[in-house]
Amino acid sequence: MSMKSYLDMTKQELSAELAAVRAAYDALAAVPRKLDMSRGKPNPAQLDLSMPMLALDPATLTHTASGADTRNYGLPTGIDECKALFADLLGVQPANIIVGGQSSLNLMYDSVARALLLGVYGGSKPWGQQGKLKFLCPVPGYDRHFAVTAAFGFELINIPMTATGPDMALVKQYVESDAAVKGIWCVPKYSNPSGITYSAETVRAFAALKPAADDFRIFWDNAYCVHCFDGKDDELLNIFDACKEQGSEDMVYEFASTSKISFGGAGVSVIAASENNIQFIAKQLGVQTIGHDKVNQLRHVHFLKDADGVKEHMKKHAAIVRPKFECVLGALDTEIAPRGIAHWNKPHGGYFVAYEGLPGTATRCVALCKEAGLVLTPAGAPFPYGKDPEDSVIRIAPTFPDLPELEAAMELFCVAARLAALETLTAK
Amino acid sequence: MSMKSYLDMTKQELSAELAAVRAAYDALAAVPRKLDMSRGKPNPAQLDLSMPMLALDPATLTHTASGADTRNYGLPTGIDECKALFADLLGVQPANIIVGGQSSLNLMYDSVARALLLGVYGGSKPWGQQGKLKFLCPVPGYDRHFAVTAAFGFELINIPMTATGPDMALVKQYVESDAAVKGIWCVPKYSNPSGITYSAETVRAFAALKPAADDFRIFWDNAYCVHCFDGKDDELLNIFDACKEQGSEDMVYEFASTSKISFGGAGVSVIAASENNIQFIAKQLGVQTIGHDKVNQLRHVHFLKDADGVKEHMKKHAAIVRPKFECVLGALDTEIAPRGIAHWNKPHGGYFVAYEGLPGTATRCVALCKEAGLVLTPAGAPFPYGKDPEDSVIRIAPTFPDLPELEAAMELFCVAARLAALETLTAK
Repeated sequence: MSMKSYLDMTKQELSAELAAVRAAYDALAAVPRKLDMSRGKPNPAQLDLSMPMLALDPATLTHTASGADTRNYGLPTGIDECKALFADLLGVQPANIIVGGQSSLNLMYDSVARALLLGVYGGSKPWGQQGKLKFLCPVPGYDRHFAVTAAFGFELINIPMTATGPDMALVKQYVESDAAVKGIWCVPKYSNPSGITYSAETVRAFAALKPAADDFRIFWDNAYCVHCFDGKDDELLNIFDACKEQGSEDMVYEFASTSKISFGGAGVSVIAASENNIQFIAKQLGVQTIGHDKVNQLRHVHFLKDADGVKEHMKKHAAIVRPKFECVLGALDTEIAPRGIAHWNKPHGGYFVAYEGLPGTATRCVALCKEAGLVLTPAGAPFPYGKDPEDSVIRIAPTFPDLPELEAAMELFCVAARLAALETLTAK
Repeated sequence: MSMKSYLDMTKQELSAELAAVRAAYDALAAVPRKLDMSRGKPNPAQLDLSMPMLALDPATLTHTASGADTRNYGLPTGIDECKALFADLLGVQPANIIVGGQSSLNLMYDSVARALLLGVYGGSKPWGQQGKLKFLCPVPGYDRHFAVTAAFGFELINIPMTATGPDMALVKQYVESDAAVKGIWCVPKYSNPSGITYSAETVRAFAALKPAADDFRIFWDNAYCVHCFDGKDDELLNIFDACKEQGSEDMVYEFASTSKISFGGAGVSVIAASENNIQFIAKQLGVQTIGHDKVNQLRHVHFLKDADGVKEHMKKHAAIVRPKFECVLGALDTEIAPRGIAHWNKPHGGYFVAYEGLPGTATRCVALCKEAGLVLTPAGAPFPYGKDPEDSVIRIAPTFPDLPELEAAMELFCVAARLAALETLTAK
């Protein structure tokens, strides 16, 4: 099999290569295997890193520094020390933090639901009383973000991602001209799935938006804020700092969680926002809930301590995650790059590699992998309504499998990707 | 001071009694004190009962019996063994259970919010698209229930409580004649605050309702299902059994939690419903959340084991709670009963005594207590919009104070209650 770019091959060369790659695929597919590269989940070895959190002395978990009993009712917005931990991590003040339950998606969904039913700070009426609504979706992006606004009937508008973040000229055009545009989903650091971090210019452009709507919100899901795995941490400008220069702090809801710091099944989530927003939300929250698990909040504080403690802990994750990304990126560099049939990011953090192949090949590639025993995220998933207009993007999630499984998976993936590309090229 | 009923006193006798009771009140009020009988919260001694739950071997908390890793993503509706525990407790099947976070109020609020935005199983469209809506509120009831539907703009309709539950003739009339009536709040066992348990006839009358709306739901908050404190447990007919006879299982959402079993600040909540409802809700939930804390679910299962384990554990709570109710009821029997100025329930379980004094005296009694250093739940709180039409009901919460504080509080309360009654009677 040739290492020449498929784009430079003659029709004859492509036919020969197709036969060779199909034979390679058939050989791999003939061996029963069960591989999974679909889920952006931590590996059990990463979960084991936080086991000491479950072994803390119970006597240390019952009271906050101020004497509040974590085991009893009260403090619906969270305990002070947990607010302080996240404030430290996100570069805001504790008064800008509300601590939630174990799922930050839940906080985001609830923020949309409350905006629909009750409105947001400064808005003249609830979103739900304003007719047809729209939400901006940088693509490729996180399927579960898009699913929230899809479930509530928003029209979802694709915004192309660039190497520095969403196409801000297009964002500005939509946000500033159309009051039906109520929000935008962002994963500003190590974005899901493209792995890029928004540039300072992009963040400043967000802060400088002058929305047509009086109740527009940026949903800033900083899910991977401390998730660098190779020591070359991207720098993300603090959006609240940028907003302060513009007087636009009320426009942003930031979200974060410990899902990929401690446990995806037993973590702590937060929303960070201006004091205006926090006070407004806290009043609504007081009706919604008695409060979230305060013992678990204190458990996290004792285990992680502060932002530095979190960063130290994340180095242990990095040591487990880095080789997996090296495996994925190495396979792509060796097997795909010379063939010229795709490009992809080389992220310094986060949980994903976004593989962008030739148009019309993603669905076929995923199907070929599936037939041979490798489950990938469905093609189209990173797009609103599950529809990739180019059918070119595949989200690769390296973290969950063990390394040998990942190596086998990437061997198969690369052959399938080449086969899908060759089928398309030879059909022309 | 006379032990004669105030209702039988001459004007002269009332004046003399007023002077004597005012003097007694002034003497009590002269001593600075800080007492609190306002909160339906467990006492720290009750919380201490569940401390072994925080000392479980971490290795036992990481995997379910079926091998699922509780620390990772997945199982948004909860782990099997936690569903089984609550199914056992509530007399339903595990397939009828979704496990939530630490606040059952949150589950109720979310159920209303989802019904408004997305609709319920079998409903033709979301509640929120049907104009002005109404919700039935048995009174006195739980202020936080009423606050949820008030926040969403429902018209709240008072339904008087009787000794056997809500006035079912009135409930039937509203529910069967008006499609704008979308639900009713119920605390069917040891109800908050009246302490009564709905009779089997009442439960059957609920099950037999034929709502005008195709999307009416009974919110059955079984918060005190295992909270008998004196060994004479009230029997509550299982509403799902009653519904099965009528084919009306889809009409009921039942809620429960461990808030007053383990921790009010770190417990587990559930919704129990028909399989139709559960499947419908689970689909909506899949968009809302990654799932709730599964480690805490497993912690509860290991600690409480099964329904029998819960009942054994609740006996320890009862030993702490019983003397407090005896203190409250004893003081009322001695100091108030002979004066004929109030009546109250004598509950076998739950967290409250509902004191019903003469019309027009509740606000004054609460104010007198406050001036003398005793905080009570605000008069009116157990009614929609905080408005007790008779201004007669005061919710007494005996559990949180220690016994000596409670004794001092009740001494003051009884004097204040008599003074408020005498002021009203002498003003006539």
